[in-house]
Amino acid sequence: MADAAFHGVFPYLVSPIDAAGEVKADVLARLCEHLVKAGVHGLTPLGSTGEFAYLSWPQRRRIVETVVAAAKGRVPVVAGVASTTIADAVMQSREFERLGCSGILAILEAYFPLSDDGVFEYFKAIAEAVAIPVVLYTNPNFQRSDLGLPVIDRLSRVPNIRYIKDASFNTGRLLSIINRVEGRMQVFAASAHIPACVMLIGGVGWMAGPACVAPRQSVELYELCRRKDWGAAMERQRPLWNLNQAFARHNLAACIKGGLELQGYAVGAPLPPQSPLSPEGVEEVRRALQAIGAL
Amino acid sequence: MADAAFHGVFPYLVSPIDAAGEVKADVLARLCEHLVKAGVHGLTPLGSTGEFAYLSWPQRRRIVETVVAAAKGRVPVVAGVASTTIADAVMQSREFERLGCSGILAILEAYFPLSDDGVFEYFKAIAEAVAIPVVLYTNPNFQRSDLGLPVIDRLSRVPNIRYIKDASFNTGRLLSIINRVEGRMQVFAASAHIPACVMLIGGVGWMAGPACVAPRQSVELYELCRRKDWGAAMERQRPLWNLNQAFARHNLAACIKGGLELQGYAVGAPLPPQSPLSPEGVEEVRRALQAIGAL
Amino acid sequence: MADAAFHGVFPYLVSPIDAAGEVKADVLARLCEHLVKAGVHGLTPLGSTGEFAYLSWPQRRRIVETVVAAAKGRVPVVAGVASTTIADAVMQSREFERLGCSGILAILEAYFPLSDDGVFEYFKAIAEAVAIPVVLYTNPNFQRSDLGLPVIDRLSRVPNIRYIKDASFNTGRLLSIINRVEGRMQVFAASAHIPACVMLIGGVGWMAGPACVAPRQSVELYELCRRKDWGAAMERQRPLWNLNQAFARHNLAACIKGGLELQGYAVGAPLPPQSPLSPEGVEEVRRALQAIGAL
Amino acid sequence: MADAAFHGVFPYLVSPIDAAGEVKADVLARLCEHLVKAGVHGLTPLGSTGEFAYLSWPQRRRIVETVVAAAKGRVPVVAGVASTTIADAVMQSREFERLGCSGILAILEAYFPLSDDGVFEYFKAIAEAVAIPVVLYTNPNFQRSDLGLPVIDRLSRVPNIRYIKDASFNTGRLLSIINRVEGRMQVFAASAHIPACVMLIGGVGWMAGPACVAPRQSVELYELCRRKDWGAAMERQRPLWNLNQAFARHNLAACIKGGLELQGYAVGAPLPPQSPLSPEGVEEVRRALQAIGAL
Repeated sequence: MADAAFHGVFPYLVSPIDAAGEVKADVLARLCEHLVKAGVHGLTPLGSTGEFAYLSWPQRRRIVETVVAAAKGRVPVVAGVASTTIADAVMQSREFERLGCSGILAILEAYFPLSDDGVFEYFKAIAEAVAIPVVLYTNPNFQRSDLGLPVIDRLSRVPNIRYIKDASFNTGRLLSIINRVEGRMQVFAASAHIPACVMLIGGVGWMAGPACVAPRQSVELYELCRRKDWGAAMERQRPLWNLNQAFARHNLAACIKGGLELQGYAVGAPLPPQSPLSPEGVEEVRRALQAIGAL
Repeated sequence: MADAAFHGVFPYLVSPIDAAGEVKADVLARLCEHLVKAGVHGLTPLGSTGEFAYLSWPQRRRIVETVVAAAKGRVPVVAGVASTTIADAVMQSREFERLGCSGILAILEAYFPLSDDGVFEYFKAIAEAVAIPVVLYTNPNFQRSDLGLPVIDRLSRVPNIRYIKDASFNTGRLLSIINRVEGRMQVFAASAHIPACVMLIGGVGWMAGPACVAPRQSVELYELCRRKDWGAAMERQRPLWNLNQAFARHNLAACIKGGLELQGYAVGAPLPPQSPLSPEGVEEVRRALQAIGAL
Repeated sequence: MADAAFHGVFPYLVSPIDAAGEVKADVLARLCEHLVKAGVHGLTPLGSTGEFAYLSWPQRRRIVETVVAAAKGRVPVVAGVASTTIADAVMQSREFERLGCSGILAILEAYFPLSDDGVFEYFKAIAEAVAIPVVLYTNPNFQRSDLGLPVIDRLSRVPNIRYIKDASFNTGRLLSIINRVEGRMQVFAASAHIPACVMLIGGVGWMAGPACVAPRQSVELYELCRRKDWGAAMERQRPLWNLNQAFARHNLAACIKGGLELQGYAVGAPLPPQSPLSPEGVEEVRRALQAIGAL
Repeated sequence: MADAAFHGVFPYLVSPIDAAGEVKADVLARLCEHLVKAGVHGLTPLGSTGEFAYLSWPQRRRIVETVVAAAKGRVPVVAGVASTTIADAVMQSREFERLGCSGILAILEAYFPLSDDGVFEYFKAIAEAVAIPVVLYTNPNFQRSDLGLPVIDRLSRVPNIRYIKDASFNTGRLLSIINRVEGRMQVFAASAHIPACVMLIGGVGWMAGPACVAPRQSVELYELCRRKDWGAAMERQRPLWNLNQAFARHNLAACIKGGLELQGYAVGAPLPPQSPLSPEGVEEVRRALQAIGAL
């Protein structure tokens, strides 16, 4: 399974942590089981939704360990590696490969601005440190660095960098990437893009937080897109998009955690000083989930 | 014709001005004739590409007069009205209606930030000043004000505000608008969006500078989208998108004017102190046009 | 007087316009008389506070005519010229010189980004069109273009470009300019800088909206700075700064107009769709003025 | 010494790390000794210049341990605590107090935007975790969160939050803070402000990277400001400012490390993928240091 190309719906998993800072492994495992049974094509711990920026290395390691065990080889686990330094990113990547991940979602954190050469070296070092495929992650909304087309092109020529997940709002940029990399890299959408549009222009799926609370609906949408039944896909897409929009109005992690609590998963709130979802937010998420039959 | 709903390809016309500041009416008329013969569904003078921000009121008036005369009623002329004040915008709108325009493309300029109420009052005043349909124009990349969903919703309830042209890069925002206004307003894409995607999610066409140099190719793409032949549409869309990207790398007006010069229209350069297209830019545009058979 | 170097306090005048769009020349003249009697060193119509971006050319022309007549040669009038094109800026500058202005405050408006060469050409063309001194105006908070150190250096070598008024929040940038232009250009502060600090580092005065409602207090602060009595200057500066901060929280033109209304000048509200100062804003301005004895 | 109020020049120390990731304690200790002998009033490890965002917790801990040992109680050590979570920040703060620091420089990292309440809770938790004074750190240029006046006011009422170090470019903001907190908190400048100006308006010193390579010159400037000899202070300030500007053009850590290498401290380059200072950068720094007699 790890050899097949990644495609389809990869929910960004939340990170349930208790008051003592321990990973709530049982809750996380139950969520993974639910998602796999709902048909998702992969699991992605430690994305933005997974609060990677708020977790210690032992917490991150425990999360990945738990997800790999829960996946039981049924779907690929693509874990987020995020750091400001090459040395730390390489260490994280090797450990996640050793733990049994099928891929690395490579995230570059930065404090000072970075040259394109620095960006290239960071991702290349991750790719060379492991044998599993690497998914580039770019999120200009929250990150200090961005990946321009020239450096994406260079990175697409590194053998095991085989995917890019773009979290900008700029869907046109995805087509520019697709036109430029000529198949050397496949494109995943994020929650800021309309999945049906990204599938139409040649994407292979999406990695997104909302898929955590609407896995079945997401998979159905994906299957319609795969069958190129665009009319039916858009009929599903329209109400699902309202869910994305509801989530976009709030802290992403707070929102997905709030939605999962409504669905019966005791994942808790985001780590302080982040706020839990407000009561109005809870009502908005409840309505959005009910509207698509996810509650 | 003015009564039918606007739809399809509306090229943003450039504004050819000679060294003495006179509108080159013959060149502009010849360009309009060419575009109409190529099948475009409307003509839009005085958008961003038309350098509205660089023209005096007499120049703008003369441009619109020329385009209306050249259109000979075959396609609707939707002229750009742009101002910082209500009084001036109302004056411009009335005059354009009197000159025979079929619609107003309403652009809000601002120096100081504006409240949503101020934004609403501006567009409502334009709509109430004329009997023809109004197209809202939003371009967060170049403008100091933006139109949020709540004010778009309010404006969609003003009787003759019937369209919105969104020039953000955020395609998801278009679906949010479509979901929100429930048919009270129709959506046009701009050159920052992939037209095929916007048509898929429910758009009615696009208003864009590149259509000025690729009118036939744009119309063919539109027809494929209308017939919901999405596979064939994407085959056309892909190379056309490279054209948009080439234009995005340069000053939009300089680029379209440069492309038209290559096609034999002596439209000149943008108004100083704007620079004409650089020699490398000319070569890039030449290659982009040749690649789609537009040169 | 017009030959002496500009220095000291130059209030940015508001532009009183009645409902029919006519300049309220009598109110404006009375305000000018009051300011000159309070000891200001110059008058500056058509800055940001003067809503240049909201006025037609006939309105702007009438404003300048009125201010020149009211000044009666007692203080220099430095009028704002703002445009997107060289041709229009040159026309405005020549006319303001002809009307009797002692200097031009040169403002560059832009819609598309502009190269440094374009920026240089714009200001150079203004300087060459007139014989009177030119003050460069830079306001990165509201404008799409900014003046970097290299282009400021180039412009400082154009004979009659002799001053720069910087409206960034970056006071360090002023010292960088002073270090770089080596006396070829003098620096005026704007309301975003602490005047006493700018005087300490070598500035020659300030052009600012708040001086319109606190002319006497501003002049007293200036005199203390001129005498290098920095301790006494800071004692005046501290409460005056609270006034600047009160104004910074609101639309600048609305605020200064609101303050002047409280002081008995019927200057009206900013042009629609801008909002008049809110009732809470009026109270805040009232308190700020009372605290410094300006009401 | 730890009881006296912090004031004067606190150089931001660089973090020398060898290829194996070990802190070069001997180099760091020698640098601290040099700075203390040059008369600096305190030492600040783990600011931006100290690459806190690139270091692991063991590296940070070792840096602080080394600096405290090198200071030998002669000057206060105020160490940077930076985290995204309250739990981690509290742990770091307690450990730094235990290691013998005289103060905490409290830095808030964030990935998702944070409410003012969240900001308040973060800093309050640090202050309550230790008995030593806390310096708030705000750097809107590199950080995702900013501290507005209302939350600064609230924080100034927490007993041992007694200082704020502002790294914005907005010097006026410092006077607004000083006016607002009425002595409950003292203000330190950062390298983006002109130190003499901040001293004039009531600041108590500066925490800055450039003081690492120009400690003697910085202390002389501080003493002139303390004696209110503003004329002489500005004579020193002007050439020193050119140094700040040279540093502002490059990655701050790379620049200070490059300058220290020129002065004979083998501090190495910033951690990869950050680039070392370019050859042109080295020459620029060399000239800037020579101009003030620091090389």
